[in-house]
Amino acid sequence: MLRIRFKDETGGIHLGEFADGKILLEERELSINEVEILPPTQPSKIVCVGLNYADHAAETGREPPSRPSLFLKAPNSLAGHGETITLLPGVERIDHEAELGVIIGKRCRMVSLDKAMDVVAGYTCVNDLSNRDDQRKEQNWVRGKAFDKSAPMGSVIALPEKVPEDARITLRSNGRTMQDSSIDNMIFSVPELIVEITKYMTLEPGDVISTGTPAGVGPIHHQDVVEVEIQGIGTLTNKFIKK
Amino acid sequence: MLRIRFKDETGGIHLGEFADGKILLEERELSINEVEILPPTQPSKIVCVGLNYADHAAETGREPPSRPSLFLKAPNSLAGHGETITLLPGVERIDHEAELGVIIGKRCRMVSLDKAMDVVAGYTCVNDLSNRDDQRKEQNWVRGKAFDKSAPMGSVIALPEKVPEDARITLRSNGRTMQDSSIDNMIFSVPELIVEITKYMTLEPGDVISTGTPAGVGPIHHQDVVEVEIQGIGTLTNKFIKK
Repeated sequence: MLRIRFKDETGGIHLGEFADGKILLEERELSINEVEILPPTQPSKIVCVGLNYADHAAETGREPPSRPSLFLKAPNSLAGHGETITLLPGVERIDHEAELGVIIGKRCRMVSLDKAMDVVAGYTCVNDLSNRDDQRKEQNWVRGKAFDKSAPMGSVIALPEKVPEDARITLRSNGRTMQDSSIDNMIFSVPELIVEITKYMTLEPGDVISTGTPAGVGPIHHQDVVEVEIQGIGTLTNKFIKK
Repeated sequence: MLRIRFKDETGGIHLGEFADGKILLEERELSINEVEILPPTQPSKIVCVGLNYADHAAETGREPPSRPSLFLKAPNSLAGHGETITLLPGVERIDHEAELGVIIGKRCRMVSLDKAMDVVAGYTCVNDLSNRDDQRKEQNWVRGKAFDKSAPMGSVIALPEKVPEDARITLRSNGRTMQDSSIDNMIFSVPELIVEITKYMTLEPGDVISTGTPAGVGPIHHQDVVEVEIQGIGTLTNKFIKK
């Protein structure tokens, strides 16, 4: 089952079921065109993982880490499917990064490996936008990663069991495939990431773990349309403009 | 005027005035002993500043930065005045860091220097707890800085005009002074920090900027009582235990 978070014509915010291109909400059936699709969750934090695919680590010239490399984005980074995003002014290079997003369903801390999937509400697509100009110059990637609208996500939430273990993850820029891998190439698995993160912090319902990107990251230009697609979930699409 | 956020005996959460050791709330006057003092705000994010006092940069062996060094804590890091905090298990060294906390009062982005103080609701005391074991080993200080309860703050909110520009900032561990400086030793001022941060991200009402710590940071031990005091604001006190 796929779920979709949206705002209807009266301004009401709902989580509906998404099937055959239609939204089902209790007795109603809505067309995708008559609603505003919202980010699939309202996280208190987004815990991101760096260098979690060996081929991406290689393209950055770094060794894969011995434990997950973590960084944070705050709620200001949220953006939804279909949003046109204005790139940070004065920044030369902002890259796309296709990632599997894990949406947490239960408040949790110190989760064990065998219980880790119990705290997962679903999966979504994330584009972990990265401001390389600043990222290179700072210890903590705040300007580099946590700027406004730096984490578009959506369009829908898929139950984990609907996403194959080797689901294909692809990113297309203006229709051209730039990233193409499988989520089973992750160095640290979803359960391993949950175990590690919850050694240090409580995860809240709605929080997101963005699990890292495969090789093929590259710059976004004015008027690019970027799609992140993950098998079993669907596609996240955003248009970007530079002012 | 000082304000205090607290939970009363019925579980109601209020923001009252704090004067002469009493809490004033509309027609009521409450004793500080009959309420539970809460963190003074519910931020969507805490933007922290590293190496913002030259003497602290020197004690860490680093050059003062040419622009603010930023890192993030999420809401899981909140703790209140008077809370007994259990230190992260298995971590050898967690340090105290006394800091001036700036509480944002208005949603803002791209704030100019002359308007920066208009977005400030007040000041509070923050203890920016730092897990040195992990901080040394990671690019982004997530395990090192963003663990649960890593940002005790309070006890009260002071209006900025009640805090002298050269207010003394001190930290005492079990009554012994460990940090003692003045907030006018900050390398980047509060308005300068707001300008820089809001170039990249929207600040929301309730968000906190923790403005960096002076020299004298040091380890917290089992059963230590740590107080952060800032002139014009008051004192934040926490007891720490190691399990």
